[in-house]
Amino acid sequence: MPRDVRMRGFAERADVEDVERFLSQRTSPLTSESVVLHECAGRVLAVDVCAEVDVPGFDRSAMDGYAVRGEDTFGASAYDPLTLKLLGTALPGEPFEGRVEAGTAVRVMTGAPIPQGADAVVMAEVCGERDGQVEVREAVAPRRHVGAVGEDIRRGDVVLLAGRRLRAQDLGLLASIGVATPLCIRRPRVALVVTGDELLPAGSRPDGVRIVDSNSVILRALVDRDGGDCLPFEILPDRPERIREALMADADVVLVSGGSSVGQEDHAPRLVAELGSLDFHGVSMRPSSPAGVGRIGDAAVFLLPGNPVSCLCAYEFFAGPTIRSMGGRPRTWPHRRVRLSLARKISSAVGRTDYVRVAIEQGRVVPIATSGASILSSTVRASGCVIVERSLEGMPEGAEVEVLLYDEEPTEEISP
Amino acid sequence: MPRDVRMRGFAERADVEDVERFLSQRTSPLTSESVVLHECAGRVLAVDVCAEVDVPGFDRSAMDGYAVRGEDTFGASAYDPLTLKLLGTALPGEPFEGRVEAGTAVRVMTGAPIPQGADAVVMAEVCGERDGQVEVREAVAPRRHVGAVGEDIRRGDVVLLAGRRLRAQDLGLLASIGVATPLCIRRPRVALVVTGDELLPAGSRPDGVRIVDSNSVILRALVDRDGGDCLPFEILPDRPERIREALMADADVVLVSGGSSVGQEDHAPRLVAELGSLDFHGVSMRPSSPAGVGRIGDAAVFLLPGNPVSCLCAYEFFAGPTIRSMGGRPRTWPHRRVRLSLARKISSAVGRTDYVRVAIEQGRVVPIATSGASILSSTVRASGCVIVERSLEGMPEGAEVEVLLYDEEPTEEISP
Repeated sequence: MPRDVRMRGFAERADVEDVERFLSQRTSPLTSESVVLHECAGRVLAVDVCAEVDVPGFDRSAMDGYAVRGEDTFGASAYDPLTLKLLGTALPGEPFEGRVEAGTAVRVMTGAPIPQGADAVVMAEVCGERDGQVEVREAVAPRRHVGAVGEDIRRGDVVLLAGRRLRAQDLGLLASIGVATPLCIRRPRVALVVTGDELLPAGSRPDGVRIVDSNSVILRALVDRDGGDCLPFEILPDRPERIREALMADADVVLVSGGSSVGQEDHAPRLVAELGSLDFHGVSMRPSSPAGVGRIGDAAVFLLPGNPVSCLCAYEFFAGPTIRSMGGRPRTWPHRRVRLSLARKISSAVGRTDYVRVAIEQGRVVPIATSGASILSSTVRASGCVIVERSLEGMPEGAEVEVLLYDEEPTEEISP
Repeated sequence: MPRDVRMRGFAERADVEDVERFLSQRTSPLTSESVVLHECAGRVLAVDVCAEVDVPGFDRSAMDGYAVRGEDTFGASAYDPLTLKLLGTALPGEPFEGRVEAGTAVRVMTGAPIPQGADAVVMAEVCGERDGQVEVREAVAPRRHVGAVGEDIRRGDVVLLAGRRLRAQDLGLLASIGVATPLCIRRPRVALVVTGDELLPAGSRPDGVRIVDSNSVILRALVDRDGGDCLPFEILPDRPERIREALMADADVVLVSGGSSVGQEDHAPRLVAELGSLDFHGVSMRPSSPAGVGRIGDAAVFLLPGNPVSCLCAYEFFAGPTIRSMGGRPRTWPHRRVRLSLARKISSAVGRTDYVRVAIEQGRVVPIATSGASILSSTVRASGCVIVERSLEGMPEGAEVEVLLYDEEPTEEISP
């Protein structure tokens, strides 16, 4: 039997900018953790890294050739080669133990330690080798083709700064100075609270009036993109006690999908207010006007409307920047932006922020949809979105607009 | 005791463009595999996906409100409200089993199935409810606030095309039509063959003449970025029998780091030629001129010089595009490119392609390094690279050049 219900709209809606300002003031990077080097790509350094060793730690050969005393080669040329006595070989990791004296040479491979006494390397290409002798056909100056101690990195150098998003080569450099587990900013742990008695888990086929949960699939991919770490989750029934328990997860961010508006089965807003604070509920935007933002303990809580486009939109406006920022990344849109002209006008309303899905056709921006919060296919057909700020009542055909692209894919059409 | 050695340079070097052309002609996307939906973000669809169901599969309410026969509300206004008899409630997944006849209404939540007989929804905001009656203060036309069967996706629609790199919302859409395991192009399996008696595994501290393997760390991160899947690996001693075994890995791509030039301990080129074909060895480029390209069985083999910048450079020119292309992605540079002017000239030589590490300072491109194949820190300090094509003997100060950025990080300095 249906319980007693209160059905009402939102008394008042907040401006998008106010919610954004609130969130950016309240959010800061999390603490740090040690991360195994080969899992550090894309992670954000929590502290400056200072080299405790020189790289290289020994003078090394930059070429395959012969380690010599440079002065011994002075005057050598193709017409007038010099001959040195070959003492042996130095390989990477396998030094020549003797000493290069006047008139001698040691065969060296690239990366091999330069033997004692030698100060330069003659390239193999200008040498010949026969009967224990090396014929040198070119003079080399001292230090030539020798990689000196610390030429790459000097002990004491600050090699990477806190806040750096680690690239492949950064990891290589950290390896080379002997760092095993760099201190990175912790990934935000994100709890998904997905409610709805009508929902079947992703991977099911829709069945009669039961639909498949698509929001958790979208959210997991977005959280991953933004550097967050989704905790295991299950679809919850619309029962306050179950939702309450889920809201109290040990997480940095709680994303509530569904049951977040002001209707009969919308328990989450009341529960968030009870357990912590519900700072905003109802935002002047289209779609996702029923979005909400709150806090339970240290966790930021986002009420994302159940309609999939609204869910995506509220995530991108509010949750995404928060998760990125907690993880030490910039709050800004994580994909490329392009400026192009509008092929058709966009209508909006002063006082409301619109999230318009757009396609890019022949270098122009074609609005696909502003309303239709349940039409997920609009976001699939779109190349990106255009935000119509609340001060505007729309944007005319031909206006240059900024498109926030949905991915990084190089697209011929949008290349300048 | 050192064995007999042949020390020689490259007799002839190939042009970068020829190697690139060879590779692009020989490479095509791999076969497909089923992938669990929540692991599909960023994966490439192998086939078109056609919806086998309508979404929604039933008429649903787009609002919280009351399901009515639209015509019953005609004439209703705030001044002259109409009253309907409230029959019950429909919730998402929990339909109202009766029928809406003339003069009646059913309370509906967003997403709830529209009851039989009803054809429109009046928003809760313009209604009141008391004593089993609903007061309606606004007329609604039939179909208003009703999401019709198939309004998002129609059964039979091709919703996503083969070759699509799946985004978060695409996964949501696939979930909503009941797809559990989309067919994606298989990720290239990449075997790393890292050789060098001087190498300590990443995570070690450099020790005397032993250095830490940084190349595998760089390569693993790059392969991951490019959609490949690195197989487990270990550092191999410079012993031909061990290298031979590793080269014959069951992989789509073999990356050989170190031991790939023409020196004494460089076994890989000969082994590749024996086991398959060594199509190129030695390329007119700086750095990484000892790079090589071959094939063993179906696997593409890349000889990457041991110096870390050379390794990175040869990967980016040859291996990266191949791995991306096998995985169904574009061969092109995977990060953003920007066009900016040169703050200082770059010197090069006609006939050689240069990979110049550059910084971006005050909106201008500052060359950091062209040579110095062992100076990994140059790639860490750089924002990206500039390619000097072999037809050029350099680029003058002020010239507009294209910078291939090393990451996607939004940088104030390079925003237009």
